Amino acid sequence: MFTRIDHVGIAVTDLDEAVALYRDVYGFEVVHVGVVEEQGVREAMLRTNATGDGACSYLQLLEPTRADSPVGKFLAKNGPGLHHLAFGTANIEAAAASVTEQGLRVLYPEPKAGSMGSRITFVHPKDGAGVLVELVEPAQVAAAAR
Amino acid sequence: MFTRIDHVGIAVTDLDEAVALYRDVYGFEVVHVGVVEEQGVREAMLRTNATGDGACSYLQLLEPTRADSPVGKFLAKNGPGLHHLAFGTANIEAAAASVTEQGLRVLYPEPKAGSMGSRITFVHPKDGAGVLVELVEPAQVAAAAR
Repeated sequence: MFTRIDHVGIAVTDLDEAVALYRDVYGFEVVHVGVVEEQGVREAMLRTNATGDGACSYLQLLEPTRADSPVGKFLAKNGPGLHHLAFGTANIEAAAASVTEQGLRVLYPEPKAGSMGSRITFVHPKDGAGVLVELVEPAQVAAAAR
Repeated sequence: MFTRIDHVGIAVTDLDEAVALYRDVYGFEVVHVGVVEEQGVREAMLRTNATGDGACSYLQLLEPTRADSPVGKFLAKNGPGLHHLAFGTANIEAAAASVTEQGLRVLYPEPKAGSMGSRITFVHPKDGAGVLVELVEPAQVAAAAR
């Protein structure tokens, strides 16, 4: 069902400074920078490695575009740091149905737009033992199904 | 230098309950359960995917064995949740030297024993923009070099 760590989401106060750290010090490649209006964030995606299912793992650096966005509220409460963990799947509807059958709630009845053309949802924060888990179906899977 | 997300470390209050969540609901395979005395934790490693460098990514579930361990203190302050992010390298000494040259401090002058025979160190928590970063050289690399 889930075939990889799709990405690790990291809340940052200054996106450019954070990109410099993860690109120049840790050495990962920036593959995308953009705004996801739906989530109220400016983000950078850095590729860390290929994965055995033919996709990749990323780090997603998240700077809030508004204080009342989920990441803005997280920063106000916790400061910068690890924000969420995303698992990749080829079929987000099936994955969401499976975790729901196991008793976890998901946040969106229909998947929403994530970064780089992906479709995403989240497990309810109270159902993940302290970890905000995102489910991700990448763009190429959605495109291939059409 | 760093060729993958080696693992994501997750602090948990009950290891058996957490293993049930990540194994039975999210579907990842448990490949190791054990105690790392050095770090004061009982841990479970769950494999999420193969990585392009010939290794794997894991989730590392961490239950403290004593309240004054780093994970014990983290849980007391923050509750359960994402604890650290580990990058994999084939040469931990070279990786530690590189991040040090870039102005970050590492915690151990010599790498210490991590899980499953790995050798590890950490970037100083104050130097990672809010994220505790671990550097990991897996067991097979250390063995091949001897």
